[in-house]
Amino acid sequence: MNQWILEKTGFDPADAAADGNRFLCANGYMGLRGAVEEAGPAQFSAITLAGVYDQYQDRWREPVNAPGALHFRLSFNGQALALGRTEALSHRQRLDYRHGVFQRETDFGPVTISSRRFVSMADCHLLADQYELRFRADGEMTLLAGISTAIWDINGPHLFDFDYQAGNALLVRAATGEKRIAVAAAQCMTPDFEAEETLLQREQGIFRAYKRRVKKGDTLTVSAFAAICTALDGGDPADSARAHCLQAQARGFDACLQAHRDAWERIWDRCEITLEGDEAAALALHASQYHLNCIAPRHADSLSIPARGLSGQTYKGAIFWDSEIFFFPMFVHTQPEIARSLLRYRIKTLPGALKKAAEYGYRGAFYAWESQEGGTEGCTNFNVVDVFTHRPVRTYFRDKQIHISADIAYALRSYYDITGDRSLLMAGGARVILECARFYLSRANAHLDSDGVDFADVIGPDEYHERVKNNAFTNRMILYCLESALRMREIFADQPGWFDRLLRELDYEKDWALIRDLCPRIREPRVRDGVVEQFDGYFDLEDCTLDDVRARLCDPREYWGGDHGVAGTTQIIKQADVIALMALFPDRFSPEEVAANWRYYEPRTEHGSSLSACMYALAACRIGRPDAAWPLFMKTAQIDVLGGGKQWAGEIYIGGTHPASNGGAWMIAALGFAGLRMQNGYPTLHPHLPPQITRLRFPITAGGKRLLVEVTPDGGEIRELG
Amino acid sequence: MNQWILEKTGFDPADAAADGNRFLCANGYMGLRGAVEEAGPAQFSAITLAGVYDQYQDRWREPVNAPGALHFRLSFNGQALALGRTEALSHRQRLDYRHGVFQRETDFGPVTISSRRFVSMADCHLLADQYELRFRADGEMTLLAGISTAIWDINGPHLFDFDYQAGNALLVRAATGEKRIAVAAAQCMTPDFEAEETLLQREQGIFRAYKRRVKKGDTLTVSAFAAICTALDGGDPADSARAHCLQAQARGFDACLQAHRDAWERIWDRCEITLEGDEAAALALHASQYHLNCIAPRHADSLSIPARGLSGQTYKGAIFWDSEIFFFPMFVHTQPEIARSLLRYRIKTLPGALKKAAEYGYRGAFYAWESQEGGTEGCTNFNVVDVFTHRPVRTYFRDKQIHISADIAYALRSYYDITGDRSLLMAGGARVILECARFYLSRANAHLDSDGVDFADVIGPDEYHERVKNNAFTNRMILYCLESALRMREIFADQPGWFDRLLRELDYEKDWALIRDLCPRIREPRVRDGVVEQFDGYFDLEDCTLDDVRARLCDPREYWGGDHGVAGTTQIIKQADVIALMALFPDRFSPEEVAANWRYYEPRTEHGSSLSACMYALAACRIGRPDAAWPLFMKTAQIDVLGGGKQWAGEIYIGGTHPASNGGAWMIAALGFAGLRMQNGYPTLHPHLPPQITRLRFPITAGGKRLLVEVTPDGGEIRELG
Repeated sequence: MNQWILEKTGFDPADAAADGNRFLCANGYMGLRGAVEEAGPAQFSAITLAGVYDQYQDRWREPVNAPGALHFRLSFNGQALALGRTEALSHRQRLDYRHGVFQRETDFGPVTISSRRFVSMADCHLLADQYELRFRADGEMTLLAGISTAIWDINGPHLFDFDYQAGNALLVRAATGEKRIAVAAAQCMTPDFEAEETLLQREQGIFRAYKRRVKKGDTLTVSAFAAICTALDGGDPADSARAHCLQAQARGFDACLQAHRDAWERIWDRCEITLEGDEAAALALHASQYHLNCIAPRHADSLSIPARGLSGQTYKGAIFWDSEIFFFPMFVHTQPEIARSLLRYRIKTLPGALKKAAEYGYRGAFYAWESQEGGTEGCTNFNVVDVFTHRPVRTYFRDKQIHISADIAYALRSYYDITGDRSLLMAGGARVILECARFYLSRANAHLDSDGVDFADVIGPDEYHERVKNNAFTNRMILYCLESALRMREIFADQPGWFDRLLRELDYEKDWALIRDLCPRIREPRVRDGVVEQFDGYFDLEDCTLDDVRARLCDPREYWGGDHGVAGTTQIIKQADVIALMALFPDRFSPEEVAANWRYYEPRTEHGSSLSACMYALAACRIGRPDAAWPLFMKTAQIDVLGGGKQWAGEIYIGGTHPASNGGAWMIAALGFAGLRMQNGYPTLHPHLPPQITRLRFPITAGGKRLLVEVTPDGGEIRELG
Repeated sequence: MNQWILEKTGFDPADAAADGNRFLCANGYMGLRGAVEEAGPAQFSAITLAGVYDQYQDRWREPVNAPGALHFRLSFNGQALALGRTEALSHRQRLDYRHGVFQRETDFGPVTISSRRFVSMADCHLLADQYELRFRADGEMTLLAGISTAIWDINGPHLFDFDYQAGNALLVRAATGEKRIAVAAAQCMTPDFEAEETLLQREQGIFRAYKRRVKKGDTLTVSAFAAICTALDGGDPADSARAHCLQAQARGFDACLQAHRDAWERIWDRCEITLEGDEAAALALHASQYHLNCIAPRHADSLSIPARGLSGQTYKGAIFWDSEIFFFPMFVHTQPEIARSLLRYRIKTLPGALKKAAEYGYRGAFYAWESQEGGTEGCTNFNVVDVFTHRPVRTYFRDKQIHISADIAYALRSYYDITGDRSLLMAGGARVILECARFYLSRANAHLDSDGVDFADVIGPDEYHERVKNNAFTNRMILYCLESALRMREIFADQPGWFDRLLRELDYEKDWALIRDLCPRIREPRVRDGVVEQFDGYFDLEDCTLDDVRARLCDPREYWGGDHGVAGTTQIIKQADVIALMALFPDRFSPEEVAANWRYYEPRTEHGSSLSACMYALAACRIGRPDAAWPLFMKTAQIDVLGGGKQWAGEIYIGGTHPASNGGAWMIAALGFAGLRMQNGYPTLHPHLPPQITRLRFPITAGGKRLLVEVTPDGGEIRELG
C-alpha cells in the first residue's frame, strides 16, 4: 500500500457523486471535482469557487460554480467516447495526495485516454491538464477541447449574460445574477500534433475541434491551461484569466507542474504527520491533511473554509463553527498564516454579526450559523423537510445556536495563546471578542430574586435537542468568551492607552463592569455521579437506547431532532456535546470526570455528525483509552478516503468532503495520541499511543518557533527545528 | 318554540354520544348522561362523580364513574325491549332546562316505556326515576331494575372489589384502585303493582326482577330512588347511600321532585336571564345557564368545575383556566357562594401549586394546567398523537402555559371587587395572590444591561404558538397579578397587623420590594398600526389565510399547533389571545384600539376552541358592533343545544358539554349586550343590544346587594331588588 495514493479501478455511475469528492483537486481558490474531462453536470463535474456566492430567485444562496474550463470530448470514427456513456474496457483513476495530481486512464478499445491534471498550488487561478491519446486502430479522430458552460448547480443557475471570445486563448465571460460579479474562464491549448482546427461556439460553451487521421500506434498529446478569475480578485477578470493561462502555456506543462509540486512540498514540510505502524492509518492521515490543505485559503488574507470545503455547493458553501473548532487547530499549530485568514474572515464579517444580534434584539456580535460573504446568514428557519408531509420544518439552528460567537472567541484566544502573536487581536480580534462577550451579556437571563444567570432557549452541539436551557457546553464556552474579553486588559497591559481607547470607542466601560459581575454568576450544570448534565432537565428525559429510538422511526429518512423527532424527547444525542466541552478544555476536567462522562454519553450518542467521533477520540486519549480512540480515529481519518457519508437527502445533493473530520484526524493524532497541549505558554506532550502506532512525528510552530514532535511507545519529545 | 325544552324525536345510534351530553342531568355532585335507563357502556351511559379521581395503571388520571344506579331492563313475552337494540315505533326524549327533568317515551309496539327522572338539586346524593309501562297487548313482562356495574370508562377500570348487598335497598360497594376511595350506590324501588320478585346478583350488577302477566291497557309504574356516596363525603358511604335512598322512598317521588323543582326555582331566581325578541336565543341562554348551574358545586365548599363539566371523563375531569375566566363571571355576579367554592378549591390546592413551581425550579405558586384533587397536575408532556407516526407529540401546555396562576389571581381580585367581601382573601385568597406573584417574580427574565423584563418561553391562550416570548396576554395578566399582590396592603389598610404578619409568615418582605420594582419593567408589546403584537416576533411570521393553512393539511386530523403543525409558523391562531386580553381589561383599551385588533385578529383566528367566540363577541360589543357579536353569541350559547363539537379524536372520546361556552353566553349577554361593568366599585351599564333583542333582564348581586338589570333599545337601568 502506497501511503500517498488513492486509486480506483473500474467505473460505476452510482459512485460518481462520491468519487467527485474523494478525487477532489483544489487550491483554496477553487475546487475541481474528481470527474473525468468529458464529464458534465450529470456526472457532477464542477469547479466551485471559494467565497463567491449567488442567490437565484428565492432559493438558498450558494457558491458559484465556474464554467468547465478543462473540458475535452473525443470521438473516433464518428463514435463519441465518453466514460459512463461509452463502454470502456478499463478505467482507472488516482489521486496523488502528496502533490495533488489527478490521473485517469480509460481504455475504450481503439483509443486509450490518459491524463494528468492539477489545480495549481503555485498559481491559484491556474488549472492544467496533460491529455494523451494512444490509438490502437487507424481512423479519424475529433477532439473537442475548450470551456463548457453546461454547469451543475444545486440552486442555480448563477451565471448569466455569457460572452464568448476566441483568440490565442478561448474566453468565457459571464456575471452572477444577484450581485453582477463578473466571472471569466480562459483556456489555451498546446497540442503536439497537427490537425484541422475549427472554432465551435455553442450555447453551452466554446471549443476548438481538432480533426485528423490517426494510425494504430499513434500517440497524441495536448496540454491544456485554464484560468478562472472573478471581479472579486480585482482588475478585469477576463484580462487576468487570459494572462494567467497564456503565461502558463508559455512556461509549459512540466514547469507548471513542477512549481505546483514544489508548493505542495513546502506545505508538507510545514505539517506532515508521519505515522509508523499502520499503513492504512498513515494513508488516511495523508488524505486528511491533503484535503484540509488543498482548500486552505492561501491566496486570500481573510477567507474561511466552508463545511464541505470546495467540493461543491453543499451546505450553501457556508462557514460553520467547523472552521474555528475543527479546522483551526491544525492550521494554528502548523501554518498560522492560514489560521489568521480564517480569523480575519470573522473580523471582517463583524458588521454582519452586529447586525444579526440587533435583528434578534441583542447587543454585540451574534455570528451567522452559516456564514457567507460579509457575514450574511445563510441559515434559514426551515432546514429540514418532513418526510410525511413534505412540508418544511421549523428548526432553530439559525436563532438558538448561540455558541458560534464563543467558538470564534475561543479560536482568537487560542491563536494568541499558541502563537504569542498579538497583532491579530490588535487588528480587530480584540474587538470581535469584546463584541461577542457583549452579545452574551445582553443574551443572559438574570433573575430578580436570585444571583444565578441562565442562558436559556439555546441549542448546543447536539442539535437534536432544541431550545434547551443552560447547555453545559454553551455556558462554559460563553464563560470562556467573557473571561477572554476581560483577559484582554492583561494581554495589553503594556499598551493601556490603546486598549482604553478601544473600550471607549466601543462604549464598553459599563459593559466591562457588568461582564466582570456576570462571570461568577453563570449557572453551573448539575452533576450526577460525576456526569455533567448536558442541559437543565436532560437527565429527566426518557433514558433509552439508540436501538429503541431507531425502532420508532416510521421512515428511515425521518429527521431525528426537535420535539417531533424520535430523539428529541429522549437522552439520545446527535453528537459530542459534554464530551466536546471536555475535549476543548482538557485542563478543566480530571481524567476521572472525563471517564465518567465518556461512559455515560458515548452509548447515548448517535454520532450522526462527522464532528462527533473526533471529540470522543480526543476524550478517550485523555482518559488513557487510546484503544477506544482508535476506531473513532480511523472513522474520522478515512472518511474522504472511503467516500462514505450521505450523498443525498431526498433529491437534494448533500455530499462533499469532510474538512471537519480532516481537521479532527490531525487533532486526534497530535492533540490526542501525542497529547500536545499548551501549558503556561509552552507546548507539552501527554502521549497516549494506541498499540497500532509505533512512531508519530510532526512539525508544529509555537511561539514563533518551528518544533518537531516525536512520540514512540517509549515517550515523546519536542525539539526545535533549525 | 318553548324556551325551556330541548326535545328530540327518533333515535340514531350515531347521535348517542352527543345526546348523552345535550340531555345531561346533574347537580354538582354528579352528572347523569342523557342515555335511557336500559343503556349501558356501549351507549355511553354514565354517572360521573365530581372531584373523585383515579388512575389505572399508567393511563391518564380521570374522574370516577359510579355504578349505574338507575338501570332498568324490560322484556315482554321473552323479547328484550331496549332502545337501539330493539326496533322502536317511536322514540322521544326531552330535557326541561327549567327544572332539570329528563323524560323519555319509547313505543316498542306492545309496550310503551315512558319515564321522568332527575338528579336532585335538593339532595346531592339522590337520583330518582318514575318509570311507567303501558301495555297494548297481553303477555308476560319481566322488568329488571337495579344497579349495573358495567361501567363505561375512558381510561378505566377504576372500581374494584365489588360487594353486593340486598335488603330494603340494593347496595353496591366498591373502592377505587389508586387511593382505595370507597364508593357506594344504593337503590330502592316502589312499584305500584304486584309481581313475582326475584333478587339477581350478577357479575355486572345487582337487580330485582319483577315478573308478571299483563293485559292490554294495563299501566304499571315503578318509582326508583338511588343514591351515590363516597368516602370523600365523610361517614360510611354505604350507610349514607342507603339512608338517602330510603328517605327519598319514604317521601315519595312527587315530594322529591317538588323539592328538586323548588331548588331549581331558587337558582333561577338568582340568575335567570330573560331575553325577548328571539326565541332561539332565549332557549340557548336558558340551556347555557342550565348547564352551568347543574354542574355548580353547591354541595361542597371548595370544589371547582371541570372543563367538560360532569358530562363524562373527557379532559381528565380536570380544572382548567376555564373555571376562573369563563365560569366564574356568571357565578360571582349571581351566586357568589359558588364563585367562593371555585376559588376555595384553588386556595386548598395551593400546596400543589407551590410544589409544581418548585419542580420547575421556581418559587411561589405555579398552578396545574389541568388540576385534579389536591392540585395534582393532570396534564402530561405529551397531549397530542401524531397522525402519521402515531407517536405522542411533546406539547408545552403543562410547563409553559404560565398564565394560569395569574388567571386565578384575576378571579380572586374580581371576587373582591364585585362582592366587596374580604373574607375569602383573608381565608387564604391573599396568600394565593402573593404566592402567584412570587412565582412570576422568580419566572421573570431580567437583563444585566437593560431594565426591561421579559416573560419568555410561554404559551398564551392561543396554544398553536408554543414557547413564545412576551405574550401580550400573559404579560398583562402577570402585571395585574403583581399589582393585585401590592394592592392587598391597601385592601387591608385597616388591618395592618394581620397583613404584616402574613407577609412575615410568607417571608415576603424582600419579594414585596422586588415586585414593586418589577411592575414598571415588564415589557410592553409592540404595537403596529394600533395592533398589539401577540408576542415578540408574531408579526414576522408568515401572514396567510386560514384557507391557505387548511390547504396544507395532509390529513384532516392533523394537530395544527406547535412548530410542526400547519399554523405554528404562521399568524393563524387557535383562539382569542390579544382579544381575550382586551375583553378582560375593558377599561384599559379604547374602542378604537379594540376595533383595530378585532379587525386584524378575527380573520386570523381559527376559533378552534370553544373559548374563542365569546371573547370576540365581548370585544365586538365593546366597539359598538353587536351585529358582529350576534353570530358568535349564538354559536356560543347554542353549543350544547345543538350538541355539535368534536366527539372523537381517533379512538378517544373527547365529547362533553361546554361549560366555558355556557359561561361565555352569560358573559356576552350580561357583560357584552348589557355592558355590565364594575367601575369604582359600582355596577354600570354600557348597552350594545343587537337588533334581535328587544329586552334583556337579569338579576345580579354586587357589593352584597341584589340588583335587577334591564336593558332595552332605549337604554338600560339597574335597580335594587327587595
